[in-house]
Amino acid sequence: MTAGITIAIDAMGGDRAPQMVIDGLAVARERAPDARFLIFGDEARVKPLVDRHPALIGISELRHTDEVVANEAKPSAALRSGRKSSMRLAIDSVRDGEARCVVSAGNTGALMAMAKVALKTLPGIDRPAIASVFPTMRGDIAMLDLGANVEVSARNLVQFAMMGAVFARLVLGMPRPTVGLLNVGAEELKGHSTLRDAAQILRDTHFHGEFIGFIEGDDLTSGTTDVAVTDGFTGNVALKTAEGTARLVTEMLRETFASSFLARIGYLFARGAFEKFRARTDPRRYNGAMFLGLSGVCVKSHGGTDALGFANAVSVGVDLVAQDFNQRIAEEMDLVTGIEPERTAAAG
Amino acid sequence: MTAGITIAIDAMGGDRAPQMVIDGLAVARERAPDARFLIFGDEARVKPLVDRHPALIGISELRHTDEVVANEAKPSAALRSGRKSSMRLAIDSVRDGEARCVVSAGNTGALMAMAKVALKTLPGIDRPAIASVFPTMRGDIAMLDLGANVEVSARNLVQFAMMGAVFARLVLGMPRPTVGLLNVGAEELKGHSTLRDAAQILRDTHFHGEFIGFIEGDDLTSGTTDVAVTDGFTGNVALKTAEGTARLVTEMLRETFASSFLARIGYLFARGAFEKFRARTDPRRYNGAMFLGLSGVCVKSHGGTDALGFANAVSVGVDLVAQDFNQRIAEEMDLVTGIEPERTAAAG
Repeated sequence: MTAGITIAIDAMGGDRAPQMVIDGLAVARERAPDARFLIFGDEARVKPLVDRHPALIGISELRHTDEVVANEAKPSAALRSGRKSSMRLAIDSVRDGEARCVVSAGNTGALMAMAKVALKTLPGIDRPAIASVFPTMRGDIAMLDLGANVEVSARNLVQFAMMGAVFARLVLGMPRPTVGLLNVGAEELKGHSTLRDAAQILRDTHFHGEFIGFIEGDDLTSGTTDVAVTDGFTGNVALKTAEGTARLVTEMLRETFASSFLARIGYLFARGAFEKFRARTDPRRYNGAMFLGLSGVCVKSHGGTDALGFANAVSVGVDLVAQDFNQRIAEEMDLVTGIEPERTAAAG
Repeated sequence: MTAGITIAIDAMGGDRAPQMVIDGLAVARERAPDARFLIFGDEARVKPLVDRHPALIGISELRHTDEVVANEAKPSAALRSGRKSSMRLAIDSVRDGEARCVVSAGNTGALMAMAKVALKTLPGIDRPAIASVFPTMRGDIAMLDLGANVEVSARNLVQFAMMGAVFARLVLGMPRPTVGLLNVGAEELKGHSTLRDAAQILRDTHFHGEFIGFIEGDDLTSGTTDVAVTDGFTGNVALKTAEGTARLVTEMLRETFASSFLARIGYLFARGAFEKFRARTDPRRYNGAMFLGLSGVCVKSHGGTDALGFANAVSVGVDLVAQDFNQRIAEEMDLVTGIEPERTAAAG
């Protein structure tokens, strides 16, 4: 297992694991023929699934463990008692240099806690953040933090902005991404002092992105900026609110069409268009949240996804490794040595 | 102007004021034949508009001022220099007992600042909150705070929860509304300590609602609770994110239908259904954010609304006055005398 990129896989995380995980690897393998998989999980359950996919044999290695991190496990409990779990062993294989990236659809809090402890943060980064990509009125937007840090300092937000810009450059292909800080518009003093301090530092900092100032909730979908930066509390609420709203609007639409005979006929004509609409808004397309700022690439797949969604999460990991993402972040952080230390210290 | 309910109207606030305001009053008058309007604004512009609606003559009184609070004015500047503005005079008429409610489509921050200073908070309420009603998968939900308080204490959140429950009971007709505190799910310690303290107080407090604990962003649209309570920063971001997402999904759908010939034919058949969908998701139906917790009813209309939306905001104000909303809040707050003062003080 030396050629290509090796990805460590937690086979046991996710609602329909391990089947959806292994089927997802078969799809991912088609997209990235160079990738190799180091799979951690219950051999009795996982091996028969791998054997069904001839393309996986020879490029994957299965390591047995019968311990699994439960979905409802608290991160601290998972840290203490999950040292032999499929999730932890997969993370450890990245720490030990056997794999370059770990992908799991398991418990988010446990994955973050274990990844922080085992992989540590990159030089210049105080705290990792969860990032993901979402569709907007014009192209995609990268958003972070989506839940790793319930409370943040101005310094954390500045680091998130810089990591987000590197991410948008490498993964979304934007040469000079625009970056906005999520805030509210109605109030005179526009949000917490932490946000104002972070904005001030970002205005004064040289990085490979353009800080355009504060944005509001509706800018996330209008695509005002390429990167949206916020704390993990606000980001998590915004993400789940957006998901819920999309479901609500789609459901209202479905009910409307089911409510009249003419509309049902109309649906038959428009079925192709509806399929396209569904494909465009398919959450599996955007599956795969990245833990940015760790010494090792860690991708969290949605727990409820299917094989196609899991394959997308693996592809995200392959992309980040292929682009030397962590190296680029380290270079970007070197740029900030210009900030006076007392400034960032005071803001933090 | 003694019979019925008198509503003070800021004729000059809003993108299409004063025309949309006065046309809105004519619509509101049909729905609430007992209402009377005390209108503040530029007589030269407003009087000709009022004269066009015979139904408004005799039940409305126009008071001239040529001062207006600008949309971009800072709240502190509006407070200092806007004492003769249409917005401030309308608020003052509620303070002086001439009207029972004020409705404005102007600058939100200025309206809140002026209303706080002129009307003061209700006994037992430390800070007012902005509340509004939104559609969910099952009925409507009341949510607060939507932007008045960027930072809150546990005690503020508890008061918001109790005001929200009164609002849901009186305006949404729910006998024993369920109340949830907006939080994130991914983290072990689930959100800020402020939230945990507020949850503890609410569990121990007797009020006319049922506290069901923490909810997440997607619960806002699935309708898990009747009332959602959060700080003004998170609430404002969630509200704008939801609005933006609804627009994005609708726009993607429109593009999809425009993209194929068959889909356009399908649209012709389904046009009636689409009209129903549009009516159901019409933001004007949900126009009218309430400032809860003030000694006087204050309703903020969206600045970009039209006459129909403004009429809805006026109807919301008429409802609150007719139901003796502020008296009910005062009674509800009397219930909390059971909380040991040191408990709420420590949490605050």
